[in-house]
Amino acid sequence: MSRLSVNQETIKQWSLPELAIGCEAAGVRQVGLWREPVREYGLARTARLMGDAGLGVTSLCRGGFLTDAEPAARRRALDDNRAALDEAATLGTDTLVLVSGGLPAGSRDLAGARERVAEAVGELCPYAAERGVRLAIEPLHPMFAADRCVVSTLAQALDLAERFPADRVGVVVDTYHLWWDDRVPEQIARAGAGGRVHSFQLADWVTPLPAGVLLGRGQLGDGCVDFRAFRSMVESAGFDGAIEVEIFNEELWARPGAEVLAELLDRFHRFVC
Amino acid sequence: MSRLSVNQETIKQWSLPELAIGCEAAGVRQVGLWREPVREYGLARTARLMGDAGLGVTSLCRGGFLTDAEPAARRRALDDNRAALDEAATLGTDTLVLVSGGLPAGSRDLAGARERVAEAVGELCPYAAERGVRLAIEPLHPMFAADRCVVSTLAQALDLAERFPADRVGVVVDTYHLWWDDRVPEQIARAGAGGRVHSFQLADWVTPLPAGVLLGRGQLGDGCVDFRAFRSMVESAGFDGAIEVEIFNEELWARPGAEVLAELLDRFHRFVC
Repeated sequence: MSRLSVNQETIKQWSLPELAIGCEAAGVRQVGLWREPVREYGLARTARLMGDAGLGVTSLCRGGFLTDAEPAARRRALDDNRAALDEAATLGTDTLVLVSGGLPAGSRDLAGARERVAEAVGELCPYAAERGVRLAIEPLHPMFAADRCVVSTLAQALDLAERFPADRVGVVVDTYHLWWDDRVPEQIARAGAGGRVHSFQLADWVTPLPAGVLLGRGQLGDGCVDFRAFRSMVESAGFDGAIEVEIFNEELWARPGAEVLAELLDRFHRFVC
Repeated sequence: MSRLSVNQETIKQWSLPELAIGCEAAGVRQVGLWREPVREYGLARTARLMGDAGLGVTSLCRGGFLTDAEPAARRRALDDNRAALDEAATLGTDTLVLVSGGLPAGSRDLAGARERVAEAVGELCPYAAERGVRLAIEPLHPMFAADRCVVSTLAQALDLAERFPADRVGVVVDTYHLWWDDRVPEQIARAGAGGRVHSFQLADWVTPLPAGVLLGRGQLGDGCVDFRAFRSMVESAGFDGAIEVEIFNEELWARPGAEVLAELLDRFHRFVC
């Protein structure tokens, strides 16, 4: 239970102060944050709020979107990622989650887009090292390959990460994106052996998927993901970091935050511990 | 162009006689058929209609749904697949497309479900051989793994098919399901070397996906699939069979069938030939 981290998007209806109070009341000691709500509340103010509440920040979502071929767009993306690294350092988290970005409009060149991600990660690496923040490449489910993330499997994410030092570039193991892949056991072992599991995130897979598919993640236990099997795999691979619950689901967002958090804790006990 | 086959679901608004007339008018010589409309029109009657129109039947969709663990449900599924093999033989096609089925309700055991598919294919194999029909295992996009098809990649489909003789069990290479996977080039080469590319189907990947995601396939050229690259891969692997266009898309179904077919032929010339 001490390893649980609640990603703020899971209880998006809560403001940052509500999140701090709600987590304290429920005994949750760690959270994952998103850049947009942090910016809205104020970066320094958020860092103070987390510090005063004694809440650890396990990750910041997100950098990335590095697939553009056009030079000016590419420079803007790199600048934005440097800003994200600054924000992560200020918030005291050692992990910036990177979502690579999809295919540029009109492009059919997946391999080229993936290569541009690798180049961009290489450019960001020294800046990340100076700030003591690790870049965690998140493979997203293949249904997002066109419009959100050309890195679709853990094997691809590792192929990319392994070009760089393990203490600088690693991967996110997110059950929602990876549950279907029969290569995951061997790839988690590979990630663990290399010290590259930088983040472990949970959400369940439920069907039918909603239009646009982004907000289709399920509460733990509502779907078909075997969380204990995933937890056992990452732990056997040497991971002992935070277990972050990150669910985007409009039904959860429509309910009182405290109720959602209580349900999440109950489900975490029943399906993960 | 002589290799084009039009799957009847692409122009679902057409009855079977309209399909026969429309294909003849457009110079299309081959079609892929589905069991439900064939049954509705009559099996023997459909076989006669195709014969009289000189239309080849490149595949019958579909058998499969073989993941149930419960004995009675399993027997029913096997009986239904034997019936599908009989229908394929009557229609004169040598290929029955198999969609494996999803996870049984409440199950989280993907590996077990995949193993039950292998067992069922083994049971169907002798019956298929007697009828001269090949079982073509179709990997479906991982977004269908829970509710429709636990076989999600070409590598998985080949792992399964290779347990059986190549002239009896092969795979479907469908661009819609496989376009995102960086292992596809090596896996198509593997399939071709083993003589296991039993069907080659085309649809484009377009976003955003609709609710339920089943009817999200795009007209050739509307999305991000590189059809020429796929065609080159399967041909380099020795495949010289039909190129079947199979699109499920409500916008296409709402238009006059002849208009959809004319557009399809134009797109086939521009993006595939």
